[in-house]
Amino acid sequence: MKIAGTHYRTIWCTADGLVQVIDQSRLPFELSIMDLATATDVARAIKTMVVRGAPLIGATAAYGMALAAREDASDENLKSASRELKAARPTAVDLPWAVDRMHRKLSVLPPAQRPEFAFREAALISEAYVEQCRAIGRHGLPLIRELARTRQRVNILTHCNAGWFAAVDWGTALSPVYAAHDAGIPVHIWVDETRPRNQGASLTAFELGSHGVAHTVIADNLGGHLMQRGAVDMVIVGADRVTAAGDVCNKVGTYLKALAARDNDVPFYAAMPVSTIDWSIESGADIPIEERSAAELIYMTGRAADGSTAKVQVVPDGSPALNIGFDVTPARLITGLLTERGLCAANRAALRLACADQRAVNEGEGA
Amino acid sequence: MKIAGTHYRTIWCTADGLVQVIDQSRLPFELSIMDLATATDVARAIKTMVVRGAPLIGATAAYGMALAAREDASDENLKSASRELKAARPTAVDLPWAVDRMHRKLSVLPPAQRPEFAFREAALISEAYVEQCRAIGRHGLPLIRELARTRQRVNILTHCNAGWFAAVDWGTALSPVYAAHDAGIPVHIWVDETRPRNQGASLTAFELGSHGVAHTVIADNLGGHLMQRGAVDMVIVGADRVTAAGDVCNKVGTYLKALAARDNDVPFYAAMPVSTIDWSIESGADIPIEERSAAELIYMTGRAADGSTAKVQVVPDGSPALNIGFDVTPARLITGLLTERGLCAANRAALRLACADQRAVNEGEGA
Repeated sequence: MKIAGTHYRTIWCTADGLVQVIDQSRLPFELSIMDLATATDVARAIKTMVVRGAPLIGATAAYGMALAAREDASDENLKSASRELKAARPTAVDLPWAVDRMHRKLSVLPPAQRPEFAFREAALISEAYVEQCRAIGRHGLPLIRELARTRQRVNILTHCNAGWFAAVDWGTALSPVYAAHDAGIPVHIWVDETRPRNQGASLTAFELGSHGVAHTVIADNLGGHLMQRGAVDMVIVGADRVTAAGDVCNKVGTYLKALAARDNDVPFYAAMPVSTIDWSIESGADIPIEERSAAELIYMTGRAADGSTAKVQVVPDGSPALNIGFDVTPARLITGLLTERGLCAANRAALRLACADQRAVNEGEGA
Repeated sequence: MKIAGTHYRTIWCTADGLVQVIDQSRLPFELSIMDLATATDVARAIKTMVVRGAPLIGATAAYGMALAAREDASDENLKSASRELKAARPTAVDLPWAVDRMHRKLSVLPPAQRPEFAFREAALISEAYVEQCRAIGRHGLPLIRELARTRQRVNILTHCNAGWFAAVDWGTALSPVYAAHDAGIPVHIWVDETRPRNQGASLTAFELGSHGVAHTVIADNLGGHLMQRGAVDMVIVGADRVTAAGDVCNKVGTYLKALAARDNDVPFYAAMPVSTIDWSIESGADIPIEERSAAELIYMTGRAADGSTAKVQVVPDGSPALNIGFDVTPARLITGLLTERGLCAANRAALRLACADQRAVNEGEGA
């Protein structure tokens, strides 16, 4: 999407084989491009959330395997890079999926052919993510268009960042929003701040503003009240993992918004490519949930009055803090799952029907 | 309650007639005492949240009228002070209640007798708040004791600050917690950070830590997940206003926690003196809700690395923000209301029965 009129993606490979990403840890006050030269660079970028969001992590990890193949195309090195990359974040399913796919395809080639093939394959994965996201937008657009028939503008609440910064382009939850905006439908987005890392206030607000989409940042606490007062027409969030039964693991706080949406008859959608579905897990209660450093809650980073980046402590000395990154929204609270294949009910039967051929797709055409 | 072993109240009058309060806007990194010399000082302290919390605002406003009477005991000045004090915050019902009570009692006296009477009356109001809070703790204690029978420790989630910093002593929501702690029952409090003003992270964490109560600060987003995983045994929050039907207006985000509590069969209590009940309002939807400055969301204040207080910007330039201070939790989600008169069901009939004599109490014995 656009930043000040120029089209960007979150990750790209230059003509001379350099992998570059937008350093999201510096947003929203600095637009900085980071070079990734090695698989270790990639693992670090994933771990420190220079890149984040399930699809973008998948695409970046694929390039990580390509960089590993260029460094040393031996079986041993690919195996070690694969381990390093997969350990960078515990929750996203796209990460092991992309790494294993690259690893599998590279393993059957002679080492000399691996580097060139790997970059082509990573570019295919990246392009497939863009097409998936565009398709999610296409399938979500009619939902917004329908709401717009009886409203001056459509108010959509989102949590965290599942926009194009979380993907390669378009985004998942925000792809329908961009599709609607670009189609001239008046939309306004309530952007949950999303403590403790503030991905909503920093990334979602920045990307919507950069593309010219009307939005308002709110505390994570406010969404329920806005729904009670009729100020939210729909909720769209992303997903880090979806179980076979349709439970959605997403940024912590998503579940609370889903409860409020149900209590106020507001439709609640989660948007994701079908590769986010983890068929090996049935119930949301079985998803391992990432515990992150308490420092993310205790300290808050922002721009100081002099323009520098500063960190302030907001929890008293001696008070412990707990920082858990995700929660699980049960399928019963979800109006529908927006995927690249269309809108799907959040239950086992509908998901199986929509994805009957998923294994073939995963292994075949690069989805 | 105690800070480092010394007993404090949030407001007191010295032997030589000086009104002093703990400046809560400087907590948790600095314990600072502020002198209030005039009614205008008091109005400013309420407006800028040097003092906050419904009971403490009531007690401080009563002293505001006493200071006004000492400055100039004329009918005209009392009327103007009353107007100024009542305009300082729009939501709390204790504020107009305390001011009107002082005004009414002073009006029937000859001006010369007003100052002395006013300070005595303000002290009575303050003392009555302490007794109310202590009684709330007494009535809440058996609920915690019962949970402790089958648990190694009782995990209680609270939102915002309804502790002794929100009252004169003991607090409302936290009074049962202090009663349980002082009775040797092992309790552990999940403290919602409470964006955007962080009263949980700064005030609740500080006062619990100061008194020696085990606690953990969490993002407002986490409570639902903790309830899903069985880590919350009960929720207790305060209330800024309760309608005749038992709807509870409290810090924004309370409603989301009540929804999660219901979804996970966790008992949800709101604690308040019965003077918080606004008999003139039936439904929560009719409560006027305070919109505060967006700057509270856009900037975050804390302690910088050098120990100074610093403010950082956390929302991008050009992104609007909306800051609404309260929400309304419908009575249907509330297990019970904890008042100084005991535990009461959150419905019109139960409230009327419990408070049949409330008008007499308000006007008679200083409750």
